[in-house]
Amino acid sequence: MIKVLLLGSTGSIGTNACNCIRRFSDTFQLVGLSTNTRSEILGNQVKEFAVSSVCICSSDAAEKARAHLPSSVNIFEGTKGLVDLVRETEFDILLNALVGSVGFAPTVAALERNKRVALANKESLVVGGDIITNLLAQGSGELIPVDSEHSAILQCLNGEDNAALESITITASGGPFRETPIEKFPSITPQEALNHPTWTMGNKITVDSATLMNKGFEVIEAHHLFRLSFDKIRVLIHPQSIVHSMITFHDGAVIAQCGIPDMELPIQYALSYPKRLPIQSTRLDLGAVGSLTFSELDFTRFPCLKLCIEAGKKGGTLPTVLNAANEIAVHYFLKGAIPFIRIAEIIERALNLHSPRTADSVALIEEIDAETRNSIIKGIIKK
Amino acid sequence: MIKVLLLGSTGSIGTNACNCIRRFSDTFQLVGLSTNTRSEILGNQVKEFAVSSVCICSSDAAEKARAHLPSSVNIFEGTKGLVDLVRETEFDILLNALVGSVGFAPTVAALERNKRVALANKESLVVGGDIITNLLAQGSGELIPVDSEHSAILQCLNGEDNAALESITITASGGPFRETPIEKFPSITPQEALNHPTWTMGNKITVDSATLMNKGFEVIEAHHLFRLSFDKIRVLIHPQSIVHSMITFHDGAVIAQCGIPDMELPIQYALSYPKRLPIQSTRLDLGAVGSLTFSELDFTRFPCLKLCIEAGKKGGTLPTVLNAANEIAVHYFLKGAIPFIRIAEIIERALNLHSPRTADSVALIEEIDAETRNSIIKGIIKK
Repeated sequence: MIKVLLLGSTGSIGTNACNCIRRFSDTFQLVGLSTNTRSEILGNQVKEFAVSSVCICSSDAAEKARAHLPSSVNIFEGTKGLVDLVRETEFDILLNALVGSVGFAPTVAALERNKRVALANKESLVVGGDIITNLLAQGSGELIPVDSEHSAILQCLNGEDNAALESITITASGGPFRETPIEKFPSITPQEALNHPTWTMGNKITVDSATLMNKGFEVIEAHHLFRLSFDKIRVLIHPQSIVHSMITFHDGAVIAQCGIPDMELPIQYALSYPKRLPIQSTRLDLGAVGSLTFSELDFTRFPCLKLCIEAGKKGGTLPTVLNAANEIAVHYFLKGAIPFIRIAEIIERALNLHSPRTADSVALIEEIDAETRNSIIKGIIKK
Repeated sequence: MIKVLLLGSTGSIGTNACNCIRRFSDTFQLVGLSTNTRSEILGNQVKEFAVSSVCICSSDAAEKARAHLPSSVNIFEGTKGLVDLVRETEFDILLNALVGSVGFAPTVAALERNKRVALANKESLVVGGDIITNLLAQGSGELIPVDSEHSAILQCLNGEDNAALESITITASGGPFRETPIEKFPSITPQEALNHPTWTMGNKITVDSATLMNKGFEVIEAHHLFRLSFDKIRVLIHPQSIVHSMITFHDGAVIAQCGIPDMELPIQYALSYPKRLPIQSTRLDLGAVGSLTFSELDFTRFPCLKLCIEAGKKGGTLPTVLNAANEIAVHYFLKGAIPFIRIAEIIERALNLHSPRTADSVALIEEIDAETRNSIIKGIIKK
């Protein structure tokens, strides 16, 4: 049995992962779960999978949960509890499906224990990519991407010599505003931003997909995961989200991974890698799809993407600041407190105010993350 | 040094292979060549690559060549000479770029010597797939496809577990008559049939690509190469010839190999497999291509394809008859002796007249091949 510790078990990725583990209950066993506030869903998961350890980040939710969960369940609390859960639970794979930079410390904790991390929390690599890369180089931990794009690249690379890799191309649906006239951007509502054309995801990542910040994160992730310089990572608009990403070898061969947009496959693949387990889903039928289209990105339309890639290239603590600023800006946008176009402005200002340092410890990352959030919150409230 | 014996060195694949060997002259060494009639080009190749053994199939051309080739060169003659060349030359890889069923016996001879065969001669597997499959199972020879479609599938499979393979999809440009009104088919000229929209190839294979017989051959080839039943092999029209083929795994993942249509890559890959050597070519730019389209095949438009797949499914000596009938029919079509639509009619009639037998020896294959050719030639001349 492969023991899986699942952080963020009540979100979109988390519930999908539970489906996979349910289907392959003779291969995988859930040993730990976490949620931010959804303690009722977590309670049901604990019962179904007979899970012995959980973490509930919100203390209100934790209090409620204590009344309902079996007394045998080991309950951790708060974001610090996530790290304790990782350190104190016996597991083989951490599936990190947390949202935001809160996912970074648990990723580090699992790699310090030389475990496999199936990483859906892209912020881990954005805020602390260098630290994670060092941990991977020094220990025997593994990082397997759950993002459909990076899973695609991993699937394309499978069995090939990395030295022959020339470049990778990450596809982007372009989100809901790919063709919206730019003069309409100031009046974009949260509801419009949450209406993604091809993928069903949580709110925060859906807004990140509308600004294309999410694609910028993926570029930084790819840089760390596949040890590629930024000039070898290309982003291409592909509205149908059928080609999930592709790689080009030094002989000009392009290998692409395609499929119906569905997170079931990359989640399961990250758990079973390098083996493939069957999935009884509708198969891609390109004859029925008819046409796949591709076009260059318009960076002027998506300033967040540009800011993100620039911060990634400069490195150090800049991506930490970018991510913190983005999390806060998206939070306030979703609350209706700031307009859509303010997201990029807030991030740009935060980056300009920051003096980059070498990102060499989890404590520093957490300090800069907190500082950035506080200063932006003050700025937004003042404004 | 990897010693390469190149049969069909003066054709489209052969000259392209020479370019590859020239580029990697510290890795590959040409040790043998063959041509049908183009002894002058062969002579130049012998000089450039200091080749010691050749075969010239046409006896007229062989006679002329003897006067010009250095006396140290070992000269074989006729189609039987091809087999002798394979048996008597010291080599590591046979690149079989012969056209037609004449390529079968040399493939067998190389596999009997447990060598790698880089196979561009698709008729080898069409006329004697079972014999070749048995040889591969019993010996330590290898068969690496040079066809862009099968090379694509091999590249997609690389490193993956064959047990997880669910199906393969071979793409077809659809040739020059993909959208020609069917009522115009009776008046198609050889010149029109030779005008392939995406690939530059020899005459015979170009006509086979216009009738889609070539695609049928590829289905039979794929059946033998990848040990797949016919119901797991799909053909999809893809006019741009960018996606060279793809595979579907049992988890729904589709891996596709793409690139600019150019035989340089599959030829070189078959020689260097599983390693990739660099190629300085223009890279595929999907942003510039813009759109890839796919549609289902119209079998009524391409009766040769249907006949071919049916013969492949029934097996035995039927594909041998089909191939011989096709070679003769295409030959007469190119000479202007029969109309385009007669090609399928001739093949169908030959198949109907044949009582299939188990294809268990090279001699039987050659006997049936010769019988079929003779009866069709008589029929055409009588007609």
